[in-house]
Amino acid sequence: VGEFDVIRRYFQHPLRPAGVVLGNGDDCALLTPAPGQTLAVSTDMLVEWRHFFPDVDPEALGHKALAVNLSDLAAMGAEPLAFTLALSLPKVDEVWLEGFSTGLLALANLHGCALVGGDTTAGPLNLCITVFGQVPATQALRRSSAQVGDDIYVSGTLGDARLALEALQGQVSLGAVDLARVRQRLERPTPRVALGQALRGVAHAAADVSDGLTGDLAHILNASDVGADLHWSKISNSIAISSVMKSVNDGFLFDFFLNGGDDYELVFTAPPSAHWQVQQAATQAQTPVTRIGTICAKSGIRVLDHNGLPMALPGRSFDHFA
Amino acid sequence: VGEFDVIRRYFQHPLRPAGVVLGNGDDCALLTPAPGQTLAVSTDMLVEWRHFFPDVDPEALGHKALAVNLSDLAAMGAEPLAFTLALSLPKVDEVWLEGFSTGLLALANLHGCALVGGDTTAGPLNLCITVFGQVPATQALRRSSAQVGDDIYVSGTLGDARLALEALQGQVSLGAVDLARVRQRLERPTPRVALGQALRGVAHAAADVSDGLTGDLAHILNASDVGADLHWSKISNSIAISSVMKSVNDGFLFDFFLNGGDDYELVFTAPPSAHWQVQQAATQAQTPVTRIGTICAKSGIRVLDHNGLPMALPGRSFDHFA
Repeated sequence: VGEFDVIRRYFQHPLRPAGVVLGNGDDCALLTPAPGQTLAVSTDMLVEWRHFFPDVDPEALGHKALAVNLSDLAAMGAEPLAFTLALSLPKVDEVWLEGFSTGLLALANLHGCALVGGDTTAGPLNLCITVFGQVPATQALRRSSAQVGDDIYVSGTLGDARLALEALQGQVSLGAVDLARVRQRLERPTPRVALGQALRGVAHAAADVSDGLTGDLAHILNASDVGADLHWSKISNSIAISSVMKSVNDGFLFDFFLNGGDDYELVFTAPPSAHWQVQQAATQAQTPVTRIGTICAKSGIRVLDHNGLPMALPGRSFDHFA
Repeated sequence: VGEFDVIRRYFQHPLRPAGVVLGNGDDCALLTPAPGQTLAVSTDMLVEWRHFFPDVDPEALGHKALAVNLSDLAAMGAEPLAFTLALSLPKVDEVWLEGFSTGLLALANLHGCALVGGDTTAGPLNLCITVFGQVPATQALRRSSAQVGDDIYVSGTLGDARLALEALQGQVSLGAVDLARVRQRLERPTPRVALGQALRGVAHAAADVSDGLTGDLAHILNASDVGADLHWSKISNSIAISSVMKSVNDGFLFDFFLNGGDDYELVFTAPPSAHWQVQQAATQAQTPVTRIGTICAKSGIRVLDHNGLPMALPGRSFDHFA
């Protein structure tokens, strides 16, 4: 089985949404965004041991490799259009390739996102996806548009993926049912694509939560030159599995919710006057959102307890070289 | 030195050509092709040992990582606009990063191609670039447009990079001056970007020669459902260093010219009536081109000797999994 056989057998993708002028099989793919729209581009690289374990289900890995990229489109309010896949493989393992491409293309089909090109090579396992979406340029949800007085929201729940990781590494103990739930969140995250698009013209600023809430919120704050007050009770309420967290100490809790990593939720800001529109967007996208705090002029992030007093913050956001 | 320091120190790129609505620092970059143009997209992944040796000059590697991608844009007739870089690094080596980014961004500046985003992670050394260009959709040089009767041309010279590789591996012996010349071709290839654009509306079909002439020409032939007769004397004349080739046997010669790999030249077809326009394009792009054969209805590639008789063809194109 050679390089071109791998592409032909596992990565042919007949999907051709409007906007894909030419798909794979040439030196380049050709993409044309719809009139009045701009192309949103993001790239993510996944490496064995760093982003997944060697024994991960290849179908889940295929799903996740695209999901983390779609999450970046969601954070921009962009509609998925196409993606490229570059793949470095230690060997041609047909069972692995079958599972990987099945998970990858199932998620691609769900979002109408066409595989339009890529590269395959022999080497240590590495997956690099570049994803393309479209959004009216004036409605893109930039990190730099947060305003003082904006409410801060987060979608879904935080900390589940991190909890799954700690459980799989034996750091915390979880029952089989709970482990299965959080493991699903770690290995098959749901990118908030519908929510991102529903927030066009509603949210001021957005980012995806991939490295931890405080780290990714900090990107918005730095780009917008503002700060944030967060309410601990709102953040800690947002996890799906608070029942099992009683056995875990407070340091862990802070770390899970604030610096968890791999959440693939959206953190976004919107003016208080848009509160109802935010709720409508959440309903339309069938994605719960929680108001967790307020944008303020004073730089930095403060987490407030139920008395409104600042809490001490241990830990920090994930850094690939730390 | 953390992940964001690496990006800030080595991969900030102030270049903002028209078409780059938003560069790095957000969840996505935003690109808008010029009115009437479509976005050409290509991705290439470079892996240590497979595409370069660990002792390669990092500045040359930075150059080459972008050059191989620009070569794909050239083969489409596209004008470079922007690129993303995903980088997996075993460790943060500041000397290496300084050299790599210098070579990378120097070539990017030369072509007005803006670094608009990317990803960095710890892991085995791996470079993945996705490049974006623009071209009027109707003028893109597709592989599927070759016509029976077209002349076949190749730019520059073939086999130099392969010769350098063999010399560095001790398979052939070269003098220091010759080695330096061919090593430059291996490590710092020149993408034929100006030629590709000059061939818009002139050439019928084009591909870049990265895996070997016969393999990449075969992509055109298969996509266009045609065959090719090539003239050995024209191909073998096209190498820069024929003087040193006398010591090498015929099998080597065939392999170097026909299956060499890493040439990053363009192979293209044009009707005989466009011969003068092809010469003008070559002059305008300051890139020599050689007419090496003819497109014919009979499928497959035949290499003809100076009597017009078919020669036996050993070897085959490079396959990453072979």
